[in-house]
Amino acid sequence: MIPTQRVPEVLTRARELVAPALRGAIERLSPELRPLAAYHLGWVDAKGVPSGGDGGKGVRQALAVLSAEAVGAAGSVGTPGAVAVELVHNFSLIHDDVIDEDSERRHRPTVWALFGIGRAVIVGDALLALAQQVVLDPEALDGEGTPAKARDGGARAARCIADATAAMIAGQALDMAFESVPGVDVAGCLAMEAGKTGALLGCAASIGAVLAGAPDSTAQALDTYGVELGLAFQAVDDLLGIWGDPVATGKPAWSDLRQRKKTLPVAAALAAGGPGSEELAEMLAAAQLDEPQIARAAQLVEQCGGRSAAREEAGRRLDSALAALERSDLVPSAAVELADVARFVVERDY
Amino acid sequence: MIPTQRVPEVLTRARELVAPALRGAIERLSPELRPLAAYHLGWVDAKGVPSGGDGGKGVRQALAVLSAEAVGAAGSVGTPGAVAVELVHNFSLIHDDVIDEDSERRHRPTVWALFGIGRAVIVGDALLALAQQVVLDPEALDGEGTPAKARDGGARAARCIADATAAMIAGQALDMAFESVPGVDVAGCLAMEAGKTGALLGCAASIGAVLAGAPDSTAQALDTYGVELGLAFQAVDDLLGIWGDPVATGKPAWSDLRQRKKTLPVAAALAAGGPGSEELAEMLAAAQLDEPQIARAAQLVEQCGGRSAAREEAGRRLDSALAALERSDLVPSAAVELADVARFVVERDY
Repeated sequence: MIPTQRVPEVLTRARELVAPALRGAIERLSPELRPLAAYHLGWVDAKGVPSGGDGGKGVRQALAVLSAEAVGAAGSVGTPGAVAVELVHNFSLIHDDVIDEDSERRHRPTVWALFGIGRAVIVGDALLALAQQVVLDPEALDGEGTPAKARDGGARAARCIADATAAMIAGQALDMAFESVPGVDVAGCLAMEAGKTGALLGCAASIGAVLAGAPDSTAQALDTYGVELGLAFQAVDDLLGIWGDPVATGKPAWSDLRQRKKTLPVAAALAAGGPGSEELAEMLAAAQLDEPQIARAAQLVEQCGGRSAAREEAGRRLDSALAALERSDLVPSAAVELADVARFVVERDY
Repeated sequence: MIPTQRVPEVLTRARELVAPALRGAIERLSPELRPLAAYHLGWVDAKGVPSGGDGGKGVRQALAVLSAEAVGAAGSVGTPGAVAVELVHNFSLIHDDVIDEDSERRHRPTVWALFGIGRAVIVGDALLALAQQVVLDPEALDGEGTPAKARDGGARAARCIADATAAMIAGQALDMAFESVPGVDVAGCLAMEAGKTGALLGCAASIGAVLAGAPDSTAQALDTYGVELGLAFQAVDDLLGIWGDPVATGKPAWSDLRQRKKTLPVAAALAAGGPGSEELAEMLAAAQLDEPQIARAAQLVEQCGGRSAAREEAGRRLDSALAALERSDLVPSAAVELADVARFVVERDY
């Protein structure tokens, strides 16, 4: 069996462990907010009727569970961390859709498109506050060691969540700033993506170990694995944002170019220099692009080497994530599963 | 000297203690977000030029400092808590202005009105994440006791912040829901205000004690003082929202009635029954109110006893806040100052 074929099992196992706790957390929201969160998570449709969806692959929650197992604890020790990272991730999706004015996600209207901007803002806020409550609630923390040790783990986990959230927000703010500048260099783009995507994956990959009371050095290595994995993932996402199959992504073709997002392939293509880069820069500076111009822009990004640069970046970051795992002293079976998840996330169809 | 005349000194002392830490916290924001936060806080104008404003009276930060002093610690022990509650308060103002589509606050354009909805959403998010970082950062916690004890205080403070934020958000969600229902009863209105205003004041009034390692029972009494003070404050705010002097409030006359907010005076007036209540209910259900109708609605709220009911509620809640102080074993000088602050907050011109 190819290693990544084992990953769906890992994701399912994590989901079965985390799902009841995530449902329990959402139950803590007020009756006004609960249906909006359930809709966003794919649990109910716009009318509140259960729809059987479960919202995404659940990579973040799986990393949190594996990260507890990687330091010798039960996967359930990572559960509050898994719930918290899923909540933060979904907070960011809901607010990013408002910010980017995206009206569709996973083939469904986004929360703001369906319920209005105000409600999307407030339910996102609620998920962020809830994430902190989940890791700081001493009763939710598994009883390994003394209550004081569990509280200490909770405080470290809360800091992990707060720091990752702050970095993610800074990345999003940088991304927004990129929209109003003509060009972005590759280093700036990677810094933005390390914040926007890497930070929370780093938190996910280390929070289980933190809750299990692992030393800082181990938590740090797992965090590095997650950040690098996030950069690999984002490079792939950037490729799919331009060349992804609209049926698979649920977004129109060349979606990111329509919004003139300065993603990695674009930044690399602009940096290449030459007439192709110049033509691309001019197009991205125009007030409006029609359909043939968008198609031409995608062609230019590819011709200027943007597509291959992003592919290489994804490969390099994956290698770097795997190297971070090998440097630390982890439970071998969990380390293998973390490596498999990394390959699975990156080796999508791009 | 009338007791509340001493309060400006207390507020100034707290401001001098907290201001550098608050500035330091805002410095931690990314360069894209810092100017937006500084603008909102009144530190700079729309062009980023320092404007010497300091944003509000700073009651919350003063409560946090006094709450540390009330349990025998230095006021500076409460500083990270003071910074955190000010950050959460300002997060909520920025997002509430988006939600309520308010384009002016304190005689200046609101953040969304000046910088757009997306930027207002993201800078609000950033302040919320920063609040958690501030209380969880072990280096920011004052060295009373062991590092483990300081971390424990940080975790308890973070939970205080997270719980208050969640309650505040639930209150705001309830307030939004009230906009689409014909009437709201007084109990529902008070539940909304306990969340929207009371929870964070309760947190402010107890977080200093929590950071100082006070027992739960003391923190709980201080929290009750703050929640009751919040309800008194909100009753006064509801009065000012209808009958406040536009020059003082920076809002148009009868502002809350224009937006058909179901505040306490309105809920009490609707509950009174009789032809006045019915006429008011009909007006509030109308699609649009013109200027004479808004004036008539304000008159009806008063005639139906809404104005006096809110005044009585403010008085009752102030008494209840003062009683909570007397029930607990606090340092007398700080307890007197807390009582003075409560009277000062409530005894505005209404």
